[in-house]
Amino acid sequence: MKIGNSSWQFKNVYIQESAVVVGPKENAGPLGKYFDFGYDDVHCNEKSWEKAEIKMAQEANLLALKKSNKTFKDIDLVISGDLNNQIIVGNYLFRDYDVNYMGVFNACASSIEGVLIGANVIDASNANNVMISVSSHNGTAERQFRYPTEYGGQKPDSMTSTTTAATSIIIGNQKSQIRITRGTVGKVIDYKMSDATDMGRTMAPAAYQTLKEHLEDFKISTSEYDLIVTGDLSYFGKDLFLQICDAHNLDLHNNYEDCGLMIYDRETQDVQSGGSGCGCLPGVAYSFILNQMRNGIYKKVLLIATGALHNPIILAQKESIPGIAHAVALEVVE
Amino acid sequence: MKIGNSSWQFKNVYIQESAVVVGPKENAGPLGKYFDFGYDDVHCNEKSWEKAEIKMAQEANLLALKKSNKTFKDIDLVISGDLNNQIIVGNYLFRDYDVNYMGVFNACASSIEGVLIGANVIDASNANNVMISVSSHNGTAERQFRYPTEYGGQKPDSMTSTTTAATSIIIGNQKSQIRITRGTVGKVIDYKMSDATDMGRTMAPAAYQTLKEHLEDFKISTSEYDLIVTGDLSYFGKDLFLQICDAHNLDLHNNYEDCGLMIYDRETQDVQSGGSGCGCLPGVAYSFILNQMRNGIYKKVLLIATGALHNPIILAQKESIPGIAHAVALEVVE
Repeated sequence: MKIGNSSWQFKNVYIQESAVVVGPKENAGPLGKYFDFGYDDVHCNEKSWEKAEIKMAQEANLLALKKSNKTFKDIDLVISGDLNNQIIVGNYLFRDYDVNYMGVFNACASSIEGVLIGANVIDASNANNVMISVSSHNGTAERQFRYPTEYGGQKPDSMTSTTTAATSIIIGNQKSQIRITRGTVGKVIDYKMSDATDMGRTMAPAAYQTLKEHLEDFKISTSEYDLIVTGDLSYFGKDLFLQICDAHNLDLHNNYEDCGLMIYDRETQDVQSGGSGCGCLPGVAYSFILNQMRNGIYKKVLLIATGALHNPIILAQKESIPGIAHAVALEVVE
Repeated sequence: MKIGNSSWQFKNVYIQESAVVVGPKENAGPLGKYFDFGYDDVHCNEKSWEKAEIKMAQEANLLALKKSNKTFKDIDLVISGDLNNQIIVGNYLFRDYDVNYMGVFNACASSIEGVLIGANVIDASNANNVMISVSSHNGTAERQFRYPTEYGGQKPDSMTSTTTAATSIIIGNQKSQIRITRGTVGKVIDYKMSDATDMGRTMAPAAYQTLKEHLEDFKISTSEYDLIVTGDLSYFGKDLFLQICDAHNLDLHNNYEDCGLMIYDRETQDVQSGGSGCGCLPGVAYSFILNQMRNGIYKKVLLIATGALHNPIILAQKESIPGIAHAVALEVVE
């Protein structure tokens, strides 16, 4: 059901299972024990970073299937996204499987965009199970959006570190412990910032816009949720987001965190401002957060995935970096 | 309703309006009089090809709104796709409008991927109107996927010419003359071809796979449709597609054409094998084909958009080019 201007109430959409496969830095971070598998090396025994990312995505998807006692025959639709030009991870991975495929791209908001689309397909009774496969890899993304990592350029404090994480979630109409109850679609918001080494701040206004619309559409306050997380604003982006929320009297001081600051220990792990990348939010949410929900720590959680919607060519044409944020709410079924 | 393995029967989805804005070569082609607007110059008075493509997309969307007596307030969701890295056309265009936004990418199959997603959202009663905005531009795409056009390299006969076309379609639950009745989602199909100057042939197996599944799922034959079109296989890709169909006893000799061969006069227009690009199929379908349907020439049409799912980085790593095709059926309402 459509709610307000930008939101949906989903009837019958549940999380079946999920899996997260990460790189060495993520595995050494504070959430290490919650991930399904962690590699010691970002090459994952492959000859290129691209192929390493594809391999990690394959493993995450096969693990999610295994954990849910399903095969690709049970999956009516796969929705995939990543940060590589032309989202090649899903394109190359899913050629090996007999499964219906759609690619999405809203940068680091792709994960929740995929969940919103999948939930609509299930809501329309057009699928029983939809798999959403989203990944990012430090080597592929840093080279493409900023500088090759071998270049060894000095990084400003505002820069985020792209998370190496492949994530898979299977959502479906079969009842489970955790239900996807609500969704809010984002708008493209551009505050005319243009620093590709400060993406956290470029996305903060979009995160505020989506949170505001979500609360207005459902006529609720921030206290509705035990936990609200944004995707990858990290240290400086989170700070700007909180400033904007404060200025608009949205109280987030007790139940808010950013996944870019959860996945690494910023004090010791040399990640500058924190984590980013489209594997960041689902990497945290589909491992640690679901675990906490299943163990009774959180009952209602709002996930707000944030994305920076530029490319290097348009920045070279002196353009700014627009942002977007998509949200879904998870709820423990009593 | 889900039909067979890969298809959907849509309940209540109608084409509200559409608009197509093209470049000079398309405007001079055989379908010139059917387009809403054609530019004399591919720069469209902008300083870069990227900004030209954004401007054309804006015009197509505003024209579609105008023709349907709607504003962005009536649009519950915009779905956008293009061929630029990180699909920047929609990202930069829709920051100027207060509208919910999702980006999709399945290369030149993005147009029908968007329609399939939009139709699901409408089928779930989660939207009244969804706009799908898809564009391609010869200057932005040729530079990115092959060579800069200024380079002036000799082109092999198998090469297609990226269509300069911005297309917009508004689909919704309000009855109209043309209904979107059926959809079939594609799979990633890779016949291990790797020539980026012969993309038509790389996509032909995916077009066959989707057509075959569509016919099997709905238990129909090719004669069900007055017209079946593929997106942008062009001369050599169409030939391979017909060979594969012949080998599997699918008769397409009376009611099939490829949009890449419809949009240009290949004999006189210097486009090598024909047209390609994600504006190609919707450029033909949302102008000429809808016109013919409204004038009683065609009653049932199947659109099969075809996409090549590679990027230049992964080709440099000696990979092949996988393809995909998505289909929707249009039907004149009696």
